[in-house]
Amino acid sequence: MLTESVKATASYKRVPLTTVIPGKTYFAFENKRGKISRAVNADLYRPKLADWRRVTAALSSGNFKGLSEDRITRAIYSAAISFCVTIDLTRTGDQKTPGTYFEYLIGHLFASRLDVNPSTRLPVLNLDMDTTLPTDYVFDLGTGKPKFHLPIKTSTRERVIQVWAHQRVLDGVYGTGRFLGTPVILAETKTDQKTRKVVEICLPLQWRLYQMHISQLKRVYYLDVPAAYAALTGVFPPIHVAPFGRFFIEATELSTA
Amino acid sequence: MLTESVKATASYKRVPLTTVIPGKTYFAFENKRGKISRAVNADLYRPKLADWRRVTAALSSGNFKGLSEDRITRAIYSAAISFCVTIDLTRTGDQKTPGTYFEYLIGHLFASRLDVNPSTRLPVLNLDMDTTLPTDYVFDLGTGKPKFHLPIKTSTRERVIQVWAHQRVLDGVYGTGRFLGTPVILAETKTDQKTRKVVEICLPLQWRLYQMHISQLKRVYYLDVPAAYAALTGVFPPIHVAPFGRFFIEATELSTA
Repeated sequence: MLTESVKATASYKRVPLTTVIPGKTYFAFENKRGKISRAVNADLYRPKLADWRRVTAALSSGNFKGLSEDRITRAIYSAAISFCVTIDLTRTGDQKTPGTYFEYLIGHLFASRLDVNPSTRLPVLNLDMDTTLPTDYVFDLGTGKPKFHLPIKTSTRERVIQVWAHQRVLDGVYGTGRFLGTPVILAETKTDQKTRKVVEICLPLQWRLYQMHISQLKRVYYLDVPAAYAALTGVFPPIHVAPFGRFFIEATELSTA
Repeated sequence: MLTESVKATASYKRVPLTTVIPGKTYFAFENKRGKISRAVNADLYRPKLADWRRVTAALSSGNFKGLSEDRITRAIYSAAISFCVTIDLTRTGDQKTPGTYFEYLIGHLFASRLDVNPSTRLPVLNLDMDTTLPTDYVFDLGTGKPKFHLPIKTSTRERVIQVWAHQRVLDGVYGTGRFLGTPVILAETKTDQKTRKVVEICLPLQWRLYQMHISQLKRVYYLDVPAAYAALTGVFPPIHVAPFGRFFIEATELSTA
C-alpha cells in the first residue's frame, strides 16, 4: 500500500504552499488538471521504504531501540499522507476513503505494538441494561493490565468534543481510569485553494475546558503535531500532546506514567 | 418567509413514501427533474397562514391559552419543513442553508417566548483562564432565574453526544443546574432515494448512557418526535422528549419542574 501510493504521488508535481505556522513548511501535490491535494508537511514527508521496513521489523521483534520517535512518526506520516493525497487528486469530494484507510492503518500499527486485536463493541451490564456499547477502537490487554480507547481521525476541528465525551461514557460505565484515552490524529491543517495558504484550525482553550470538565485524556497523538496543541503539554492542567512515534517507545510504560 | 416557502412547495408534486414507523405517514415533494425532497410528515404538515398567525399573536401577547401543543408544533413544523424542502429541490448538496434557517427560526421563536435575546458566547473566569467560551444559543433570564442552553439541529444522528458534552462543560464552568439543556431538533428521518422508504435513525440506548454518565438534559424537543425517543420519557432514568409546541405551554414552569 505504501509503495503504491508513493509511486502514485511521484507522478504529481509538487507546488509550494505558504504558511505563518512557525517552523513548518508545507507543499501540495498537483495533478494535470491543476487540482491540488491537502497540505503535506515537507519536514515529515520522507517516503523511504527502508524506514517503513525498519518500523515493521521493530513491530515484529518488539524491539524499538535505535529507532527515534521522529523517525517512526515520519515513516507513518509518509504512508498516511501519500494515500490521502492520491485520493484527493483522483476523486471528487471523497472524505470517507482517506478516513477509513487512516483508521485501518493506525489501528493495525497500534494492535501490532500491543500484540492484541481491537474491538469496537463493549458489553454493558448496568442493572436493567444488558446490552453492548458501540465504541471507537478499544484494546484490552487483559486482567490487571491497561485498556486503551483509541479514536482515530484525520482531523478533528469542533467535532473533537466527541472524543472527551466518549471517554467520559467509558469512565462512567467501567470506572474512571480503566481506559486510557489516546486518540490518534493525522493533522489539523486547512489549505485555502485560492491563496494556497495553510493554517492549523486549533481550539486550545476549549481543549483545556474539555480536559478539566468532561474527562481526562492520557495522550493526544498527532502525526503532524499542531503548534498550538504542542504548547498544552507545558501548561497546567497539562494535556499531553505528542508525535505518534512516541507511542511506540512509551507504550509499555504508559499505564503507570 | 413562511408564505414564500409554502408557495414554492405548492408548485411541486407530492409523492408518497413508505415507512414502517407505527402511526406515521410520510410524503415527499418532487421537482420537474424527478428529484425528491426530504420526508415530510403528512400529519404535521398543515401550512395554514391562520395557524402561524395565531402562534405569532400568542407570542406577542404572551397568552397561549386556547392553543394546543400539537397546533403550535404543526405551525412551526410546516414553516421549517417547507423551507428545507425548497432548498432540497433547488440546490445540490446544500445541507448548510436549511440548518442555518432552522437555527434562526427556532432561536427567534424561543427568544420571543422568553422575551430575552440569545447569546452565543459566555465569559469564563476560571482562576488563570479569563476568556470567553463559544456556545450554542444560551438565554439568560437574569439573576435568580433560569438560563437555557439551546442546541438547534435539523437532525442529530451520532453527533448528538456533542449536546450532552456541551451541557457538561456548562455544568462544570457555571455549576450543575445553572443552565437547563433543552435542545430543539427537527426530525431524525432518513429517506432512501431509490426505495423511497423512510426510517428514523435513533440511538435510544446511547442516549440513556449519555444522560446517566455525561450530563442531564432537561428536555429534548422535536418538531417530528421519533417513535424510539418518545418511549424514553416512560423509562427510568427518564429523558423527557416532547413536541416543541409543549415548550410554549410549559416555558414558565420549566425551571421548577
